[in-house]
Amino acid sequence: MTIPAHESALADTLRPDLASWVESANHADTDFPIQNLPLGCFRDARQHTRPGVAIGDQILDLVELDRTGWLFAQPFSDTIARCAADGSLNALLAQGRDVLSAIRHGVSRLLRADGDHGARSRELRDRLLVPMADVEMLVPARIGDYTDFYASIHHASNVGSMFRPDNALLPNYKWVPIGYHGRASSIVPSGAAVRRPSGQTRDDASAPPQFGPTRRLDYELEVGVFIGAGNALGASIPIGQAESHVAGLCLVNDWSARDVQAWEYQPLGPFLAKNFATTVSPWIVSLDALAPFRAPAFARAEGDPAPLPYLHDERDARAGGVDITLEVLIQSLRMRREGVAPMRVSRGSFTAMYWTVAQLVTHHASNGANLQPGDLLASGTVSGAEKESRGCLLERTWRGTEPLTLPTGETRRFLEDGDEVIMRGWCEREGARRIGFGECRGTVIA
Amino acid sequence: MTIPAHESALADTLRPDLASWVESANHADTDFPIQNLPLGCFRDARQHTRPGVAIGDQILDLVELDRTGWLFAQPFSDTIARCAADGSLNALLAQGRDVLSAIRHGVSRLLRADGDHGARSRELRDRLLVPMADVEMLVPARIGDYTDFYASIHHASNVGSMFRPDNALLPNYKWVPIGYHGRASSIVPSGAAVRRPSGQTRDDASAPPQFGPTRRLDYELEVGVFIGAGNALGASIPIGQAESHVAGLCLVNDWSARDVQAWEYQPLGPFLAKNFATTVSPWIVSLDALAPFRAPAFARAEGDPAPLPYLHDERDARAGGVDITLEVLIQSLRMRREGVAPMRVSRGSFTAMYWTVAQLVTHHASNGANLQPGDLLASGTVSGAEKESRGCLLERTWRGTEPLTLPTGETRRFLEDGDEVIMRGWCEREGARRIGFGECRGTVIA
Repeated sequence: MTIPAHESALADTLRPDLASWVESANHADTDFPIQNLPLGCFRDARQHTRPGVAIGDQILDLVELDRTGWLFAQPFSDTIARCAADGSLNALLAQGRDVLSAIRHGVSRLLRADGDHGARSRELRDRLLVPMADVEMLVPARIGDYTDFYASIHHASNVGSMFRPDNALLPNYKWVPIGYHGRASSIVPSGAAVRRPSGQTRDDASAPPQFGPTRRLDYELEVGVFIGAGNALGASIPIGQAESHVAGLCLVNDWSARDVQAWEYQPLGPFLAKNFATTVSPWIVSLDALAPFRAPAFARAEGDPAPLPYLHDERDARAGGVDITLEVLIQSLRMRREGVAPMRVSRGSFTAMYWTVAQLVTHHASNGANLQPGDLLASGTVSGAEKESRGCLLERTWRGTEPLTLPTGETRRFLEDGDEVIMRGWCEREGARRIGFGECRGTVIA
Repeated sequence: MTIPAHESALADTLRPDLASWVESANHADTDFPIQNLPLGCFRDARQHTRPGVAIGDQILDLVELDRTGWLFAQPFSDTIARCAADGSLNALLAQGRDVLSAIRHGVSRLLRADGDHGARSRELRDRLLVPMADVEMLVPARIGDYTDFYASIHHASNVGSMFRPDNALLPNYKWVPIGYHGRASSIVPSGAAVRRPSGQTRDDASAPPQFGPTRRLDYELEVGVFIGAGNALGASIPIGQAESHVAGLCLVNDWSARDVQAWEYQPLGPFLAKNFATTVSPWIVSLDALAPFRAPAFARAEGDPAPLPYLHDERDARAGGVDITLEVLIQSLRMRREGVAPMRVSRGSFTAMYWTVAQLVTHHASNGANLQPGDLLASGTVSGAEKESRGCLLERTWRGTEPLTLPTGETRRFLEDGDEVIMRGWCEREGARRIGFGECRGTVIA
C-alpha cells in the first residue's frame, strides 16, 4: 500500500459527487455514503469477529479485503488478523492517523462507482460485503481507560444550579477541562439492554439512606473520542498535535442514576451512579470524514479568560469545533406495542461545547498520563443554550419538575423500565455530502 | 491436580513450624517464608515473562514447574502458558479462589523441607528457582479497571478538615464506602521512576491559575485488592461471597499532586492530580496466607450507624479486618549519596479502616458493575488515629505546616526530586509465622 499525500488524498475522498457501486451508499438519507467510511468491528453469522468499514447498509469485511491482496501489504495483513482475533480495532488504531487515513483512501478507491478498482472489487461483491442486518456490531475497541469530561458549559451551569444554587458554575470551569475516570468494563455496544441499577439514595436527610433500584434513571447524550496512537507515560501531547492522536468519534450514552449520584458524589465524584453501563455507537467516524463539518471553537463570552497557553492553538480556535447535529428519541414499551414511532426529546449541536476535542486530549496528557490506542474520552453531556438542546432528562425535565408527555399520553420525569433511548448524530451542510454516526440505542430493563 | 478440601489444606500451609528446603525462606526476617507463597509475574534475564511464586529470596518459576508435570494437569498448563505469554497473571486469577488455594497448597508441598515432594523438587532446584535479584518484577496483572476508595475515616476526617473546615466529614461517609475510578494505564511496578507531573494550580484566587510542575507532590500509602473471579454485568456480589472474588492484597502508592488536586477536584473528583502514576508492589499475597492475621472490622464509634444490610455480614464484622503493619520511609538524594539509611516517616495498621475489603468489593458490584479478573481496588490512604500513623505527607506535615526533618537536616513538606518513597507491609503475631508484602518503591524525577 502506498500512503498518499494527506491533503490531496483526503479531498479526493470527500468530493460530494462521488458515488459508490454499493447502491445503498448513494441514498440521500444513509449515514454511510462513500464520503464517510467509518471503522467498526462485527461478529458475523459464523461467530467470526472481523474489522470492517461501513458502506451504505453493508460492511466491507477487512479480512476478506486483505485476502485479495489489493490494499494491504505486510505488516497491515498482520494488523487486520490481530483485529479479527481480538474482536477489536486496537491494533489498527495503534497504527496512527496517517495509516488510518491511507486505509480510508484505499477503501474509497475500491468502493467508487468509477475507476478500475471499482470494477475489479465489484466482481467480489459477495465475498467483500456483509449486510449490516446479518451481523452483530461490537464495542469497536478494547477500551483500556475510559474518561468522561464535562465540556458543555450549558450542562455544567444547569446541573450546577440544581445541585449548588448559590454556586452553579465553579471557579475552575473556564480554566480546566473538568473530567474524571469512568469504568471501562461496563461499556456495551448499541442495542445491549441496560439493567436498572440498585444503589444507596437518601431523599430525607433525617432518615437513613435506602438501598434499592434507582428511581431517577437518566441518559446523557455525549460524543466519544477514540484514541489512535498513544503517548508514552511522562510525555505530554502539544495541542497542535492532539488531533493526530484521535482515530475518530462516536456517540455515547452515559447512563446515570441521579438519586445515587446526588448522595454518593461528594467529595470524590460520580462512581456507582454511572459505572453500571455506558453505551457506545459501533462506528468510529474519522476526523477525515468530518473535515467538511469543522467549525470554530466555542465563542467564549466577553470577560471569559483565554485558555492557558498549553490549551491554545490558532488552528484549533479557528476550526476545533465539529458541527454534529445530535438528537435523542425515546420509545416507551407502550409506544412499541402500539406501533408509535420514537419521540424526539432533544436536538442540539456538538458546537455547543466549551472545550474542543484537541483541548480535551491535550489536557488529559498534560501531566504525562499515557493515553493508549482504543482509549475512549467522552465529551460530557452535550447541552446547548436552548431548552430543546438539553442532552439529559435531568436538564430536559428540570429535575422532573417539567415532565415530558409522550404521544401515548404517558409522562416522563426519568426513564421507566421498557423505555428505549435512541441517540443519533449526523453532519450536513451545503456543498458536502451528509454523513452520520449510526445509532446508539439501549433499552432499560428491570 | 486434586483440589484439596479448603480448610484442612489451608491449615497445613500455615503451620508456623513448617520449613522449606529453600534456605532463605527460613530466615526470621524474610517476607516470603513457605507460609506466604504470593503470586507475581517477572521478566527473566532472557526477557521471558513468567508467572511465579515468591519463596525466600527466590522465585519458583511456574512455567518450569508446569514442565515437571507434578502439579498442573490440563487445563492449568494452558493457563500458565497464557500467563507467560501475556506477562500477567490474569488467566490464573480468573480461575477463582479455590483454584488459587489449591495451587498454593500444591506449591507448599513441593517447597517443604520434609516429605517426598520436597526431596524430588530439590533435585530440580536450578531449573525451578530463579533468584529475585536476577529478574525484573512486573505489575502482576493486566489491570482492566482501577478503583480507589477512601476507606480510612481518619484520612477522610484529616483531609476534610483541611479542605472543608466547616464540613470535614461529609454526611455520606459512614453509609457509603466512597470511591472513584482511577487510571489503569499509568500503574507501574515497584522501582519505576515517577516523573513530577505538571498541571494547573491556583494559589491566589485573584490571579489566573498557573501551569507548571507540581510543588506539592505527595505519596499515599494504600493497600490494593486484586480481583480473582469476576461477576457478570448486572449481577451483584453478596457480602458473604465477597472474599471469594479476592485473589489477594498488595501495597499501593497513589502518588498525588496536592496543588493540582485542590484546584481541579470539584465537582467531579480527582483526575490529573492522581492519574500520572500509581505504583504497586509486585506480589499478590493471598487471603489464605493472611488467614492468621484477620481481625475484627473497625469498631464504629457509639452513635455511628450500622452498615446497611447489603454491607453487613456477621463473619465480616467479626474478622473482616486484616492486621497488616504498614510503614513509609523516605530517602532523599542526599541521604543516598551520603549513605544514610531511609528514614521512617509513618507506621500504622490496616485495621484502622472504616470499611472492610469485603464491603468495598460488595459495594462496588452492588449496582451490577462487572468486576473482572485482575482489576485493582485500592483502599485509600491508610491513616490511623495517631499522628505517626498518617499515610501521606499532606496529613503527616499537616499541609506543610509541620515539616519533617531528615537525618541530613533537610526538611520535607512535600516530596522533592530525587526522593525515594519506600512502603513496606507485614503481618506478625504470637503463634504465627511472620509474612510480608515486599516493597513498593518509587523515586521522584524532575
